[in-house]
Amino acid sequence: MNFDAVTKFYDYLPKLEDLKNILYPQQQREFVLLFAEELLEVETANKWIQQFSLKYQVQSGEKLKSIEEFPHHIANITNLLSTQSHKNLTLVVLGGGTVGDFGGFVASIYKRGIDLIHIPSTWLAAIDSAHGGKNALNVGSVKNQVGTFYPAKAVILVKELFASLSQDPVRSSLGELIKIGIVNSPSLIEFMKDTEAKPEDYLWELLPQAIMAKMNIALQDPYEKTGLRQQLNLGHSLGHVLETLCGWPHGWAVAQGLYFSLHWSLEKKIINKESHSDIYNFLQRFFAEKQSPQGESLPKLTEVDFLKVLAGDKKKMGNNTINFVFIQQLGKVVIEAVTEQEMMSEARRQGWL
Amino acid sequence: MNFDAVTKFYDYLPKLEDLKNILYPQQQREFVLLFAEELLEVETANKWIQQFSLKYQVQSGEKLKSIEEFPHHIANITNLLSTQSHKNLTLVVLGGGTVGDFGGFVASIYKRGIDLIHIPSTWLAAIDSAHGGKNALNVGSVKNQVGTFYPAKAVILVKELFASLSQDPVRSSLGELIKIGIVNSPSLIEFMKDTEAKPEDYLWELLPQAIMAKMNIALQDPYEKTGLRQQLNLGHSLGHVLETLCGWPHGWAVAQGLYFSLHWSLEKKIINKESHSDIYNFLQRFFAEKQSPQGESLPKLTEVDFLKVLAGDKKKMGNNTINFVFIQQLGKVVIEAVTEQEMMSEARRQGWL
Repeated sequence: MNFDAVTKFYDYLPKLEDLKNILYPQQQREFVLLFAEELLEVETANKWIQQFSLKYQVQSGEKLKSIEEFPHHIANITNLLSTQSHKNLTLVVLGGGTVGDFGGFVASIYKRGIDLIHIPSTWLAAIDSAHGGKNALNVGSVKNQVGTFYPAKAVILVKELFASLSQDPVRSSLGELIKIGIVNSPSLIEFMKDTEAKPEDYLWELLPQAIMAKMNIALQDPYEKTGLRQQLNLGHSLGHVLETLCGWPHGWAVAQGLYFSLHWSLEKKIINKESHSDIYNFLQRFFAEKQSPQGESLPKLTEVDFLKVLAGDKKKMGNNTINFVFIQQLGKVVIEAVTEQEMMSEARRQGWL
Repeated sequence: MNFDAVTKFYDYLPKLEDLKNILYPQQQREFVLLFAEELLEVETANKWIQQFSLKYQVQSGEKLKSIEEFPHHIANITNLLSTQSHKNLTLVVLGGGTVGDFGGFVASIYKRGIDLIHIPSTWLAAIDSAHGGKNALNVGSVKNQVGTFYPAKAVILVKELFASLSQDPVRSSLGELIKIGIVNSPSLIEFMKDTEAKPEDYLWELLPQAIMAKMNIALQDPYEKTGLRQQLNLGHSLGHVLETLCGWPHGWAVAQGLYFSLHWSLEKKIINKESHSDIYNFLQRFFAEKQSPQGESLPKLTEVDFLKVLAGDKKKMGNNTINFVFIQQLGKVVIEAVTEQEMMSEARRQGWL
């Protein structure tokens, strides 16, 4: 499979004919649209959606990713597409992260796989989740328990969508942008350091660079076999705990994970003091440490809950190792195996517990 | 992905340690067994099953393949494996076709894919379905609507299993064996012509040749992109209709499809009279045309039902084309697009309707 999706940038939602010509010039092709219902409230998106005779509307959110809901959805989709040959069918997925995860999974298993185009509608999806070919559903309380590696043929980035949706990019996605900068794009961080503009005013311009930095890593290890792709998990060990226990938005939780990794890296002498201060000061411009995006302080976390999330709801806890991503310098991270107990101790030392 | 699974032949079920050494010498590895409950009644299999501390028992049959049942199963499996790291986990699937389809799908999506070993327990699975990396589940009445291409790392063929299960290979699987012979292994057919032994006495010896003949084709077009792999659908258009409407076993239904393709190929002058008679006489040694395996004559089929199954339960019927596999000579088939209406006319001409 080819993980190197065609990536296109548009000011406005492209005409269906243009979308077709990107991948299928001169070919017959049927498009079916899967879209998040909140886009009906965006006038231009609503109008665009009406072009599709085959379309399926879903509600964004974790419930969409529940495996328990899946039989119902796939029966509806099967019914919708029952007159279509799957041979020339492409699923267009318009929405944010959960819709992308759901739609990617559907495309990967419907008739053993049909073509997929992602049109992310949130900054978080545009920066991160629409790229790299991973999708997932949840099983009970276990997030992302099932899924596939199934790259889109194309990812379409539409400026208008991000402008028209009321989103706070700092809260929802800036953590992922800065993460990829630290992992693999120092110049992206340098740009952000040097500008006094607000992120919402330059995020669109930084998108190509951020996506390329991510894909440079993902393409070297698309199926997560060599461990190289795990670099992209920087900030995610603690991030996942905070997302689950505090309900903080993904990007914000990852940003907290960046602080955590940064401090631990200094403690382990993986990063020098100067680089540590440099990155620390940079993070502080955007994220208040140990606070919610609304400025509320960290809720009381118990060690049992913390360990439970860390261990992925495993019955036996505390004996497993985590491939933790440490920061050596801007543009260079290193992965080291640590035990869950070591991570707990560090969380205690840093005052998260 | 590598579709060329390690294929091994054993007289008895290999020790777990031997199984491990085939794929993972010197490596740490956890095996989890998915098995069909009827194997508990086979003493040696039962004893073998007890070796596994991680195991999940299922009932064979189409119900297992229902997407509606899937959330329940995957929740159980998630719970069973909650203390395991998926990184060194291999799913061993012991059972026939439906268990293999279910297990292959589970392996392909659990944590985005874990290693898979097939140990087929029926002749049909041993000859055909365990090889080539296809799996599927059903959505409502639509068979094999979702699934993945996900090859096993190894397929283990165990003589003892086939000897100990009470199976009638002629009814259940011989159609697939002869199909692959006609498509790609004339010497397999010549061998069967020349011997007076019963199929059950030489099926085991023919297995390697039959598997190789199938895989030679599957490996040239693993994802069914070029159409080459469709050669393996010989006999399956009518076969699928008979399986659905008459409830005839898969292999037997495919055998009826071989007759159908053979006669149509003569009508279209794709095969010459001599080759037609030759193959016709051969088929008659094993399969009574237009009869069930028990010798009951063909039930009354209506054109509406026939077309409905043919069209895959599509709402609009009769306008679609089928890539029909015709027989040119032993070892050579040709694919031609026909309309559903043309296939209906031919079915009428041959007296199936």
